[in-house]
Amino acid sequence: MKEECGVVGVLMHKADTKAKPASLQIYYALYALQHRGQESTGITVKNGDKLKSIKGMGLVPEVYSKDELLKLEGRLGVGHVRYSTTGDSNIVNCQPLMVNYKNGNLAIAHNGNLVNGQELRDELESEGRIFITSSDTEVIAHLLVKALLIHDPLESIKEVMSMLKGSYSLAIMIDDRLFAVRDPLGFKPLCVGEIDGGYVVASESVAIDTLNGKLTRDVKAGEVVEITENGFEGHQMLTEKNCAHCVFEYIYFARPDSIIDGQLVYKVREQIGRELAKEHPVDADIVSPVPDSGITSAIGYSDESGINYREGLMKNRYIGRTFILPGQEMRETAVRLKMNTISENLRDRKVIILDDSIVRGTTSRRIIEMVRNAGAKEVHARIGSPAIIAPCYMGIDMASREELIAAKKPLVDVKNAITADSLGYLSIEGLIKSIGIHRDELCLGCLTERYPIKIVGEKCSR
Amino acid sequence: MKEECGVVGVLMHKADTKAKPASLQIYYALYALQHRGQESTGITVKNGDKLKSIKGMGLVPEVYSKDELLKLEGRLGVGHVRYSTTGDSNIVNCQPLMVNYKNGNLAIAHNGNLVNGQELRDELESEGRIFITSSDTEVIAHLLVKALLIHDPLESIKEVMSMLKGSYSLAIMIDDRLFAVRDPLGFKPLCVGEIDGGYVVASESVAIDTLNGKLTRDVKAGEVVEITENGFEGHQMLTEKNCAHCVFEYIYFARPDSIIDGQLVYKVREQIGRELAKEHPVDADIVSPVPDSGITSAIGYSDESGINYREGLMKNRYIGRTFILPGQEMRETAVRLKMNTISENLRDRKVIILDDSIVRGTTSRRIIEMVRNAGAKEVHARIGSPAIIAPCYMGIDMASREELIAAKKPLVDVKNAITADSLGYLSIEGLIKSIGIHRDELCLGCLTERYPIKIVGEKCSR
Amino acid sequence: MKEECGVVGVLMHKADTKAKPASLQIYYALYALQHRGQESTGITVKNGDKLKSIKGMGLVPEVYSKDELLKLEGRLGVGHVRYSTTGDSNIVNCQPLMVNYKNGNLAIAHNGNLVNGQELRDELESEGRIFITSSDTEVIAHLLVKALLIHDPLESIKEVMSMLKGSYSLAIMIDDRLFAVRDPLGFKPLCVGEIDGGYVVASESVAIDTLNGKLTRDVKAGEVVEITENGFEGHQMLTEKNCAHCVFEYIYFARPDSIIDGQLVYKVREQIGRELAKEHPVDADIVSPVPDSGITSAIGYSDESGINYREGLMKNRYIGRTFILPGQEMRETAVRLKMNTISENLRDRKVIILDDSIVRGTTSRRIIEMVRNAGAKEVHARIGSPAIIAPCYMGIDMASREELIAAKKPLVDVKNAITADSLGYLSIEGLIKSIGIHRDELCLGCLTERYPIKIVGEKCSR
Amino acid sequence: MKEECGVVGVLMHKADTKAKPASLQIYYALYALQHRGQESTGITVKNGDKLKSIKGMGLVPEVYSKDELLKLEGRLGVGHVRYSTTGDSNIVNCQPLMVNYKNGNLAIAHNGNLVNGQELRDELESEGRIFITSSDTEVIAHLLVKALLIHDPLESIKEVMSMLKGSYSLAIMIDDRLFAVRDPLGFKPLCVGEIDGGYVVASESVAIDTLNGKLTRDVKAGEVVEITENGFEGHQMLTEKNCAHCVFEYIYFARPDSIIDGQLVYKVREQIGRELAKEHPVDADIVSPVPDSGITSAIGYSDESGINYREGLMKNRYIGRTFILPGQEMRETAVRLKMNTISENLRDRKVIILDDSIVRGTTSRRIIEMVRNAGAKEVHARIGSPAIIAPCYMGIDMASREELIAAKKPLVDVKNAITADSLGYLSIEGLIKSIGIHRDELCLGCLTERYPIKIVGEKCSR
Repeated sequence: MKEECGVVGVLMHKADTKAKPASLQIYYALYALQHRGQESTGITVKNGDKLKSIKGMGLVPEVYSKDELLKLEGRLGVGHVRYSTTGDSNIVNCQPLMVNYKNGNLAIAHNGNLVNGQELRDELESEGRIFITSSDTEVIAHLLVKALLIHDPLESIKEVMSMLKGSYSLAIMIDDRLFAVRDPLGFKPLCVGEIDGGYVVASESVAIDTLNGKLTRDVKAGEVVEITENGFEGHQMLTEKNCAHCVFEYIYFARPDSIIDGQLVYKVREQIGRELAKEHPVDADIVSPVPDSGITSAIGYSDESGINYREGLMKNRYIGRTFILPGQEMRETAVRLKMNTISENLRDRKVIILDDSIVRGTTSRRIIEMVRNAGAKEVHARIGSPAIIAPCYMGIDMASREELIAAKKPLVDVKNAITADSLGYLSIEGLIKSIGIHRDELCLGCLTERYPIKIVGEKCSR
Repeated sequence: MKEECGVVGVLMHKADTKAKPASLQIYYALYALQHRGQESTGITVKNGDKLKSIKGMGLVPEVYSKDELLKLEGRLGVGHVRYSTTGDSNIVNCQPLMVNYKNGNLAIAHNGNLVNGQELRDELESEGRIFITSSDTEVIAHLLVKALLIHDPLESIKEVMSMLKGSYSLAIMIDDRLFAVRDPLGFKPLCVGEIDGGYVVASESVAIDTLNGKLTRDVKAGEVVEITENGFEGHQMLTEKNCAHCVFEYIYFARPDSIIDGQLVYKVREQIGRELAKEHPVDADIVSPVPDSGITSAIGYSDESGINYREGLMKNRYIGRTFILPGQEMRETAVRLKMNTISENLRDRKVIILDDSIVRGTTSRRIIEMVRNAGAKEVHARIGSPAIIAPCYMGIDMASREELIAAKKPLVDVKNAITADSLGYLSIEGLIKSIGIHRDELCLGCLTERYPIKIVGEKCSR
Repeated sequence: MKEECGVVGVLMHKADTKAKPASLQIYYALYALQHRGQESTGITVKNGDKLKSIKGMGLVPEVYSKDELLKLEGRLGVGHVRYSTTGDSNIVNCQPLMVNYKNGNLAIAHNGNLVNGQELRDELESEGRIFITSSDTEVIAHLLVKALLIHDPLESIKEVMSMLKGSYSLAIMIDDRLFAVRDPLGFKPLCVGEIDGGYVVASESVAIDTLNGKLTRDVKAGEVVEITENGFEGHQMLTEKNCAHCVFEYIYFARPDSIIDGQLVYKVREQIGRELAKEHPVDADIVSPVPDSGITSAIGYSDESGINYREGLMKNRYIGRTFILPGQEMRETAVRLKMNTISENLRDRKVIILDDSIVRGTTSRRIIEMVRNAGAKEVHARIGSPAIIAPCYMGIDMASREELIAAKKPLVDVKNAITADSLGYLSIEGLIKSIGIHRDELCLGCLTERYPIKIVGEKCSR
Repeated sequence: MKEECGVVGVLMHKADTKAKPASLQIYYALYALQHRGQESTGITVKNGDKLKSIKGMGLVPEVYSKDELLKLEGRLGVGHVRYSTTGDSNIVNCQPLMVNYKNGNLAIAHNGNLVNGQELRDELESEGRIFITSSDTEVIAHLLVKALLIHDPLESIKEVMSMLKGSYSLAIMIDDRLFAVRDPLGFKPLCVGEIDGGYVVASESVAIDTLNGKLTRDVKAGEVVEITENGFEGHQMLTEKNCAHCVFEYIYFARPDSIIDGQLVYKVREQIGRELAKEHPVDADIVSPVPDSGITSAIGYSDESGINYREGLMKNRYIGRTFILPGQEMRETAVRLKMNTISENLRDRKVIILDDSIVRGTTSRRIIEMVRNAGAKEVHARIGSPAIIAPCYMGIDMASREELIAAKKPLVDVKNAITADSLGYLSIEGLIKSIGIHRDELCLGCLTERYPIKIVGEKCSR
């Protein structure tokens, strides 16, 4: 399960001549958000009247050189890390998107997925407009520029927001102004904070921590926050009755040390473990996580159940890109490269394996096999999320409905497919309780097949 | 003096299943056109309904890997090599430009410079359109797509041509069709040819030679040639009374083994030498070229004058990118790295140094110093072009008027500045005679300050 | 604290024509041992009569390309990963060392450090011998070749072993034969195992696990194991009264999923935590590890003490090489990039921070500051090893005596220097109990200032 | 035909604190000698008591970065560019060879090939010595160190010289002293010169020119020149009755702007053309070189014969490493990428094609085919060297006797094989006359099958 993107925007005080350039702050912030996208990254700064940028395929430390970064002067800028969910891994799609238009220029960094992206693209194409990238971001840029020809930036952003359907957390630079924009359902996280010499907007609060800054607050759903010399000016542009925060940010995607919409991700995951223990108790000797994503929930499960927490699987910390050699045996070697068992913790024991989720089921099966080969007497799978039965339309890369094992099979068949002795998913109620946000304020589309916005061919929950 | 670009387009026969993919042919053709641009390169092919491309900063052998190239399947494609004259060396500007629009997609490879590029851009921006690159090519793409919403491809290209002012030689892929387009004044070269299994359009005929093909003909000024399964279909779209072929393609820029608008570049350069000998005879012991661009003219000069041709300067064939270390002395070392003297050919001799042109005069002065240090008794500069007194607006990177030494100083001062004993430029008449094309069919703007099209602040020759 | 190297040797059955080449097995084994050295790596195989190798600076996935690796054919080979403790990070020192001599060739991969390396080098130099690398390995090669001129390989290795003082775990290929050699005190780990189609020798058993093989046994101290078509032939060459296994392999260096000299590293670390809890109980709300090396011990501490295990510090999993920008502030940013706090787990709490060791004390101080800034009421440092008061002469990179904080200061001053509320080191007895190997069989030099072999200027424990 | 290496040594004055570091001077000198080796390069400097070096596979501009180079401080150093003739293109063989021995360290850069290299290696191996590289240089290092244990550096070098048979031009650094050493037959070039702030030794005088220095003189055959603060101290160590300068340095290998043993290479090549014209006149319309190596001789031929010099073949200046795609057709495309014809110069003409030599004959045949396809009526091959009938044992990579077309076939068959209308090789007398050095002072082994030193299985000329 991989998601799309991380966004950053930085504004440094004009007066503070000793302040670090925005590019440097963005670099570190992107480094802290690397988990949100490893395919490409870019930084765009305002340099005088012009926009300048560095972009490239690869990880943050690979794309930026010290020399180049220090040349990217300017007190204002946005940045992006990206993992493509739609497959087009061309350099052309690397963000931020820099755009020149009638009255100047703008740059957009986007996290999310538009449900009506193709529709808007078709409309814009009907007007004779052209698209150079395959990203929704270019759709937003077109709409924004159309609005900017008539309105001021704030009004323009508002107008564009009224046209977009889906998830979008944006850092936008329009001429000398920096904006943080979050869709009216607040699917994807976005927050603002204060750093030494300036202000920052970022997908997750860890980026602010890394810059030794202070998280000020989340950007509200439907809000535009303008970042100025004087701090943050919030403008509530659109108001839906309820939000629809993505539950998978808490379950899997965000860093545990981030605070998203008021909830520390770590706490949510710990509570998930506790709830699981209550919902699916089992007579076992140890509870062991699938590292790294299952660790915190396993600690919670252990706490609640009193069953010992033990590491049964160890991850190789040095795994980078490894080439795949032909043959089934080589594929298995590649798996063992990534993860190994601690037999002594597993041998002759009844083991609870705690993982964050099951998508296709293949990884779960392989892990359970490893655990059994290491001597486990029983293997009980406990999953830190409800069964995923439907696709995500808002940007989480969850595979198609056909590939989702829980969409096709009843629980007992899933259990058999992954060769577990028992299988327990967290209930939806348990998840909601763990997150600590009201059910109505969450997007549960992939778990309930009912989405908070209208999607052709799917049911709507509102 | 560096120019912009080289373009290529290839269509392979559908029926010929053993034919090489277009990508491979384009790769070799771009390699042959590498002298036209060393900054970035790209290949775009039609792969089913989609366009696919490889792009990168650097030389052809650096950007393309064998594995990636062989994956770029398709029988139709365009390619580009680029040297930026406008300074924006960002990957975003790397061509071909791939565009999606209402009815499909298109790709454009462009060599040239629009005189009304900014004006058109402003108009398009006024309509609310946005620009992602800083290239004229995106302007062309916008106009083309606007037309395509109403007209068929040929009619659309015609309409766009009627709006563009300046130089453009284009290879355009619109859906499954490939077009070669040349501006009505025919500034930049463009030709078509037949290769084993298909057809090719290219900036210079050497690309066709490299593919073991046969040059069919030049694309005419104002003509669109559609390349189909059955060969070439020419459509004369715009007709000016006269052409305005760029004289610097012959003087300096094109490869000597290319045939451009019917004239073999090698022959022109040889004749330039002959004419120079007639116009500026001098009592000398040897005539020696500045390698490589002065070689052919020096042979011609020697032939006509009877003065011995001798190599007085040798070029280091292995010079690649070399880093510049601080200090004047280090800069001089860098010059000596590139070129060395053969003292024995120069010592105690009266030497004619034949160079293709003088821009700022600094290189000429340095070379003449080297020649004198090597013992030459007299150094007579003979230049294979008339004095450059005005900038080029059509894409040749010639420095600004302020930097052009001949724009600021009379002949005698230029002679003194470069420390020559005598200085002889080829006359404009001599140049015209050497090229073998009527004066009225050439662009002589940089030599006469009169341009074949209207340029704000400049005089027009027509 | 960084250690030197990891070694691998592989022999595949002649008869098994479908067996994978040795190079591939070595590649995966080195990948599993990457934690033992990240500076350079090499693979040398026997290819007909010749040795062939690939070497390079960097990580395993960076140095080897699929194409090159598949070309490295042969059923016999050795491999190496290296982190230089002596500073000479030149490609020349990259191992395995390939050597040609009178009767053929050999290749050596070495983990360890000779105490009499310089002495032997001086002697060899006195004979007029030359050294091309700065490694002990070349010393061993000289001695081995001298012996091979007189004796057979086994006898030769024995003779060389009698001359070497210090730590050495070697994989040696002499002509068509493969040997695993371990010094008579057994400082560094070395084990052998069986894989599908052949046999393997490796620094740690995880390498065998990764190849889906079975750990057969440890190579004994003072033993040479010849790996042949028929398996392992052990030869006890030198016998000391006791071994001197390095305790830091258990404390810090080895992977937790490795079994070294019969002890699972994971179990040792867990027990260390338990012992610490018994030795240094404290009234606290949570016990939190410094990730990743403190995790297992913290679990043990929690288990024993009943104090809750909580993650207070999170590591950024994506940290690679990051360039250091000038300035103190930037250095601190770099630290925060690597580690962040979970405030909610720390705020207003009495926190036990469990780390594996203290070297200079600077990292500990920085971490305790972070924990305090996150709101911890009290911070109690518990260290999973005794105080390091003396340097290591056997290959662990522990800084000089002057830099070791515990060598200079009494406990209370160390506690103050790292700003902890209390500080508890594991006792030597507690460590020994945790490892489960008799005190006399361990090297405790860095903890006791008494070394198992004579070292000039130091006291000997035996 | 490719040869081995280029060597450089630099000593900068102690007193001159503003002098550039030796590393920088060596870098530029190696750049000027790049034609002598493109496979790998290295620079080693004396940095305090230690030697430091940068080495790598590839071209000079690829291997050295500005930052690294500026860190390589020291006033004394040697450098090397290499093309392997023996096929072992491993980084291990990259020179200079740095060696530590009893009394200090030394570095050797070697151009040449020892005839008794294997024999000396065997002897040294019999003494129990080991070899890490496959180069003769390591043999020399062993012998030198053996001598240095007894004698002073000069005496040691003398002793080593008395043992070596074959070609060697060396730059050697022993502790703080720099030596230039040339074998007693003076096969390979070596010269010394003065530069601003210091002194230099180099394979060719162009390296000195590039550093804006002055060629002082050639190192004499059998001479050792010590480079000191005060200049050059020559020591004639060995004296043979005659030298044996390699003729192929003049014919093909050296840069034309170098002066080797008193003869400007350019002048020799020009005279070769004149002699060829006298020896093999033919009724032709033009004489055209195979670029670049045939250019100067073709000018000489034209001068002498009165037949017009015309460029019939043009080289693509941008050819770098190009990957070879499968198939005969692709191989031909690769040839056309490198060279193209100027049809207009060739069509319906009787053409003399002047090339420097014929080795296997395949390239000549391909070129003559291209010339004929371009319309030439007759093609007469004139070769600027006598027929190569025997291999080189001194370092020129000339293919084996079996591959040499002239070793297997009479003249008429060679003519037919390359499809020429006539074929004229330069006579040995003509070559000697052109070089301007007495026959007895030249090595003509590959042309006469009689070598100036004893080689097993070959005849000796002395």
